Amino acid sequence: MVQNIVAGSTWKITLAYDGADFCGWQSQPERRTVQGAFEQAWLDITGESVRVNASGRTDSGVHAMGQVVGVQTESELPAERLLGGLNAKLPDDATVVSVEAAPEGFHAQHQAKSKRYRYAIHNDRRPSVALRRNAWHVPQQLDIEAMKRAGQALLGKQDFASLESVGSPRESTVRTIFSVEVIAARDEGDRNSAATPETIPLPLPPYELNSLILIDVVGDGFLYNMVRTIAGSLVHVGAGRKPVEWMGEMLLAKDRKRAGQTAPAHGLTLVEVGY
Amino acid sequence: MVQNIVAGSTWKITLAYDGADFCGWQSQPERRTVQGAFEQAWLDITGESVRVNASGRTDSGVHAMGQVVGVQTESELPAERLLGGLNAKLPDDATVVSVEAAPEGFHAQHQAKSKRYRYAIHNDRRPSVALRRNAWHVPQQLDIEAMKRAGQALLGKQDFASLESVGSPRESTVRTIFSVEVIAARDEGDRNSAATPETIPLPLPPYELNSLILIDVVGDGFLYNMVRTIAGSLVHVGAGRKPVEWMGEMLLAKDRKRAGQTAPAHGLTLVEVGY
Repeated sequence: MVQNIVAGSTWKITLAYDGADFCGWQSQPERRTVQGAFEQAWLDITGESVRVNASGRTDSGVHAMGQVVGVQTESELPAERLLGGLNAKLPDDATVVSVEAAPEGFHAQHQAKSKRYRYAIHNDRRPSVALRRNAWHVPQQLDIEAMKRAGQALLGKQDFASLESVGSPRESTVRTIFSVEVIAARDEGDRNSAATPETIPLPLPPYELNSLILIDVVGDGFLYNMVRTIAGSLVHVGAGRKPVEWMGEMLLAKDRKRAGQTAPAHGLTLVEVGY
Repeated sequence: MVQNIVAGSTWKITLAYDGADFCGWQSQPERRTVQGAFEQAWLDITGESVRVNASGRTDSGVHAMGQVVGVQTESELPAERLLGGLNAKLPDDATVVSVEAAPEGFHAQHQAKSKRYRYAIHNDRRPSVALRRNAWHVPQQLDIEAMKRAGQALLGKQDFASLESVGSPRESTVRTIFSVEVIAARDEGDRNSAATPETIPLPLPPYELNSLILIDVVGDGFLYNMVRTIAGSLVHVGAGRKPVEWMGEMLLAKDRKRAGQTAPAHGLTLVEVGY
């Protein structure tokens, strides 16, 4: 939330963006990136060129509700003015959600303890106008119970080499996954079964809500394309192409060729970062 | 819902579309319209040129979840094939939701008994990435209770001349409004108060859900721009620029200049048509 304090010179800023028209987070020459747009907006309102740090890069097409950015600045603008000013300067597909004072030395990536990613699937034969920009359209009916069970194989501290796309090797492929939730409005036994269009004030028609499947994954970190490969692998199971047990076996193989496809970028959203 | 019947030659087809990139419903030469896209898709799959009838035109920029279209055809394609074929041919911002057999002579406009429109407002100082295409951004905090009370003045059979935009006169300006609901997730006394991001499987961050206000209006018909003028007038009251009683007085004046502004098209959605 916005704080009306004139803090020192370190800010924790939370951003939302629609990834569709950005070439990802990280600044690149001649490309439209979120970092580039943010740093330009910062320059516009403070006159200061900064290089900000984010909790992590998001790839081209990936969205964020809660990307966190750390900024060290000489500017004395208070949080309230930064929020209003940045939002006035940012393009309409990127928004500052909050500006909070942070301790000196705050680094959005190094100090991140967990991240929640959400992968959205629109599981209906019919395409969805409302969800087409934010959910992967999978026409074949998916077995949600099987996906829930398969998702449990991902929990804990493990070597996730099977889920890392080539081309961007990390020092270690060991990560800890704290939770995997497969959430479906149509799932009667689900805590969300009350989520009908009559009870939810949202501009989505009933068939779209009933056909929305969300995969929420929380972990201490993720390998390149890992959440998208998790989504692709869970859909593999949900579609009945692989049994539930395959998930654990695939992880043990530590071989990317064994996993499911990398699900498309536009279904993925960085929801929040924990510190 | 889809019916697997090969019916006669009359269909009731329900469409959803994102109005942003269409010049409204009605066919116009050299313009991208929903009717034009639909009739082209129909031609592509059946080889037949048809002129369809819709429940009503929607203006440029206005969305639909449940626009209803009547089609008379010589084609013998069954509902299931029409649904799949049309969706394969339509652009991704228009979708066939259902194909149902209709009695011969069905006319989507003449036989419509009611229409539900929804006007969405994003009421937060911060802009919203997720809602920017489907909700009017009103930064000033609105008094929802006042809007609810003011909305009641619209109920019943009345002369709505004050709410009709010039340039498109109807024979009569008398219409019947069956219900007006102002729905807000942040409203504690509301039946939707349980609608938190934890209980709703939707890709919207909490602040956006809490700042969403929906105005649902059901009536037997609407004058040109009437729902958008209702929304603009209710915001007038919600923002405290007019008292609650002004709504009824403004209607009695039968003078468009007395009403609030015409709210922007992109916040409006045709939700459903009753027959």
